Amino acid sequence: MDIVTIGIITLSDRASRGEYKDLSGPEIKRYFSERIKNRIDWRYEVIPDDPDQLYHLLIEMSDLEIGLICTTGGTGPAPRDFTPQVTEKVCSKILPGFGEEMRRVSLRAVPTAILSAQTAGIRKKSLIINLPGKPRAIAECLDGVYAAIPYCLDLIGAPYMEFTQKGSHAFRPK
Amino acid sequence: MDIVTIGIITLSDRASRGEYKDLSGPEIKRYFSERIKNRIDWRYEVIPDDPDQLYHLLIEMSDLEIGLICTTGGTGPAPRDFTPQVTEKVCSKILPGFGEEMRRVSLRAVPTAILSAQTAGIRKKSLIINLPGKPRAIAECLDGVYAAIPYCLDLIGAPYMEFTQKGSHAFRPK
Amino acid sequence: MDIVTIGIITLSDRASRGEYKDLSGPEIKRYFSERIKNRIDWRYEVIPDDPDQLYHLLIEMSDLEIGLICTTGGTGPAPRDFTPQVTEKVCSKILPGFGEEMRRVSLRAVPTAILSAQTAGIRKKSLIINLPGKPRAIAECLDGVYAAIPYCLDLIGAPYMEFTQKGSHAFRPK
Repeated sequence: MDIVTIGIITLSDRASRGEYKDLSGPEIKRYFSERIKNRIDWRYEVIPDDPDQLYHLLIEMSDLEIGLICTTGGTGPAPRDFTPQVTEKVCSKILPGFGEEMRRVSLRAVPTAILSAQTAGIRKKSLIINLPGKPRAIAECLDGVYAAIPYCLDLIGAPYMEFTQKGSHAFRPK
Repeated sequence: MDIVTIGIITLSDRASRGEYKDLSGPEIKRYFSERIKNRIDWRYEVIPDDPDQLYHLLIEMSDLEIGLICTTGGTGPAPRDFTPQVTEKVCSKILPGFGEEMRRVSLRAVPTAILSAQTAGIRKKSLIINLPGKPRAIAECLDGVYAAIPYCLDLIGAPYMEFTQKGSHAFRPK
Repeated sequence: MDIVTIGIITLSDRASRGEYKDLSGPEIKRYFSERIKNRIDWRYEVIPDDPDQLYHLLIEMSDLEIGLICTTGGTGPAPRDFTPQVTEKVCSKILPGFGEEMRRVSLRAVPTAILSAQTAGIRKKSLIINLPGKPRAIAECLDGVYAAIPYCLDLIGAPYMEFTQKGSHAFRPK
């Protein structure tokens, strides 16, 4: 099995200044560590709520052919939330089914789930997925879309990942 | 409690010429009057199906910092329906969860609900929501998204509204 | 009853080179033949996965006032999938409810349904609908949206179609 790299970008003014410890990035790590058999190299960045930094980081990570890039934070209606908008700008193709399904799943927990503009898309050989900023909501959202991620990575030519059978099974149509 | 202003824009060639009485605008008034405790100033306009008039009115209302602006009409496939397209042009951020949820709720009543391109978005400190033109469908759609509106208004810096406990409860996460 | 024309565009490099027989186009024919009472003229094209050819064909078919145009194939994340992106470019109005509902219906069968960016939209007097490339999934998706198609065609000024009562009933609100 190849070593695979996964990119994690936490958007938070306060966490980036060290005012509190980011819990969302580690939660994404935990989620995929339990499900991916390959050795994983993590590229993990905590940045302020600044669209330019996010833009350049997404470009850089996808230029490095990191197959899976997850953002956390910045998906809501507040003025300093812009993660989905930057994601749409960076991606050559948007996959609206990710956002639809993550909102539908979150909506079972909180009615404010409709306020998230989270989306997913493709740039080069990278799948970029926007996750919520709340650590508790991350596994919830990923559970809703996880089964489709391995096949998506295959289709875009990302390194092949072996998945465990934990939780909803990764699904690769024949 | 502050006085809050709510904007209502009815799009209808015939109602704007006085050929029939607009029932949709008053239905939106009724809906929010029953749910908001603040004194409400209504800014209510009935305009023809003209994209330029809608565009300038949305700009004007959001420049006046009206926190909540509801449109009714013009969300379908017909050539003179363009409300969602103008809304997307005016807004700096689209919240696709509103349209998704309103269509899902309407779909329980009529299969043609998928024909509505209704959406919602943010311009400055205003939340703009597209509602259907049929008076009966307005409460149906609002019931699907209502619980998330107060928190959305808080996040964008709109005047604080106090909501009654009528129907689905307004939800503000702590 | 008028004779109506329906456009079918199959996107497949291999089928267009004759390496295998297209099954998706005929499946779309079968579906509508069983449901539309009018005599149907089919405009059926099998083209390679080439965005320019799709673009010009959609323009040509809608310039000819073909009321209903269905594409099959090219809706996924792979580099040579671009049907929804070309559809969005060609259309003056997108009807996101079609894609949402088709994904929701497909999701009952396979978790990878969220990877389809399939959409629908209007150009002039044509409704363009993206269907999946897998023949088995075509009826599944169409069943989810079929009931709204006749009314949509009426609203955009396409030739009037008479529908049979097979399967989910065509629905025209009064």
